[in-house]
Amino acid sequence: MTAPNLRPGERVDQLYSQDIQIIQSPDVFAFSLDAVLLADFARLPLKTSSHTVDLCAGNGAVGLFMSHKTKGTISEVELQPRLADMANRSVALNGLTARMPVYQGDLADVTQWIPKDSTDVVTCNPPYFADSPDSQKNPNRYLAIARHEITTTLETVVATTSDLLKMNGKAYFVHRPDRLLELLQLMQAHRLAPKRIRLVHPKPGKEANMVLVEAIKDGKSGGLRFLAPLLVYTAAGEYTAEVGRLLYGD
Amino acid sequence: MTAPNLRPGERVDQLYSQDIQIIQSPDVFAFSLDAVLLADFARLPLKTSSHTVDLCAGNGAVGLFMSHKTKGTISEVELQPRLADMANRSVALNGLTARMPVYQGDLADVTQWIPKDSTDVVTCNPPYFADSPDSQKNPNRYLAIARHEITTTLETVVATTSDLLKMNGKAYFVHRPDRLLELLQLMQAHRLAPKRIRLVHPKPGKEANMVLVEAIKDGKSGGLRFLAPLLVYTAAGEYTAEVGRLLYGD
Repeated sequence: MTAPNLRPGERVDQLYSQDIQIIQSPDVFAFSLDAVLLADFARLPLKTSSHTVDLCAGNGAVGLFMSHKTKGTISEVELQPRLADMANRSVALNGLTARMPVYQGDLADVTQWIPKDSTDVVTCNPPYFADSPDSQKNPNRYLAIARHEITTTLETVVATTSDLLKMNGKAYFVHRPDRLLELLQLMQAHRLAPKRIRLVHPKPGKEANMVLVEAIKDGKSGGLRFLAPLLVYTAAGEYTAEVGRLLYGD
Repeated sequence: MTAPNLRPGERVDQLYSQDIQIIQSPDVFAFSLDAVLLADFARLPLKTSSHTVDLCAGNGAVGLFMSHKTKGTISEVELQPRLADMANRSVALNGLTARMPVYQGDLADVTQWIPKDSTDVVTCNPPYFADSPDSQKNPNRYLAIARHEITTTLETVVATTSDLLKMNGKAYFVHRPDRLLELLQLMQAHRLAPKRIRLVHPKPGKEANMVLVEAIKDGKSGGLRFLAPLLVYTAAGEYTAEVGRLLYGD
């Protein structure tokens, strides 16, 4: 472990369940529950030779939260230099630099650094909102890019994911339910067969506000499964046991 | 109400929640929870002039269970003469003959009896299993046809549904989760925009084993919503309050 190397406005937060420290800044990027749930949902090969890539990595939260699941390499790919720099320093802070390289650049160029058809797993928490001319965007450019498809599109993310994966490699996405149809169509158009879906509901009796999808490259079609739903809060407004465990541990 | 007119092996069952009587025969056809859930999920216009069609109607369960939701016409379409006859007698038993015609014939021919682009709602509980050469089928022909795509296909059912519906008319399907991708693709290929999905899980912590889908003819794409999941049994193995209410009333 290194001492945290913080820039103005940054702080070190902790995911207690995994004893992971992460550099955040409300003005730039702070992970949300989506990252925790995606990292929990993804299944990674344990072996040292395995390679996982996290696209749209932000401050590196998803990769860091998955790091206990594998002895292999987890590459972080993030476009925004300020965020990639935070990810790099968080990786160092957790002593994971040897197996968590951070690539700063456009994911569309990723196969310049990571060979095509080479990775076991790709995870992605992409920008959720289409960049329509009339969409309300955050005036903070860092946050706007993280939330809106300003610098990439869902199709580019899915196509890149497929490019990176080996045959039978697995893709994990978190997205909004209202874009699930589009995500499923794009996956199928890019050789990714959706296999497991988990819906996330904020409370009992409420509609889903998040969806987790697992797809297999060149998997055969059919056999889609919907896991038991994940509830975030109880009716009384407290974290459910499952989410409490993901955040704070047993 | 007429006295039940039963054939050998038949009995009269009751959906207590709605005081509906239905002629069934374990050797020919008996409704299952799927029919109750589909009828509950469907939203019908109340008005007398509205027209709802239930395809793959079997013994008429779905139509009968929706009859309290509308003052309009509910047409039942069933291929198998033995089942259509049961449906007809069940409709009579409930005094609904005036507004629940039963059409016996192939749904692919339905626009010979019901005009294209004329109906407000189409419901369907189709055969769940593809008719692959190696699939295990029930040796009972009635049940095999109800469960396997021997006499129709999902594409034909979806295309027929779209043909029948007015613009902005609504389609309601119940199916297995492992065929949801195919159902969604077929709907979109046939002018039906999926809008609401509800997953049905047998118990807490278990994968979904049924899915309910609402689609709108010529609806704009996007905006798909996943309702709160429906649980059939509690962890203790009793019907949940919601399902108990659907079966037995308040």
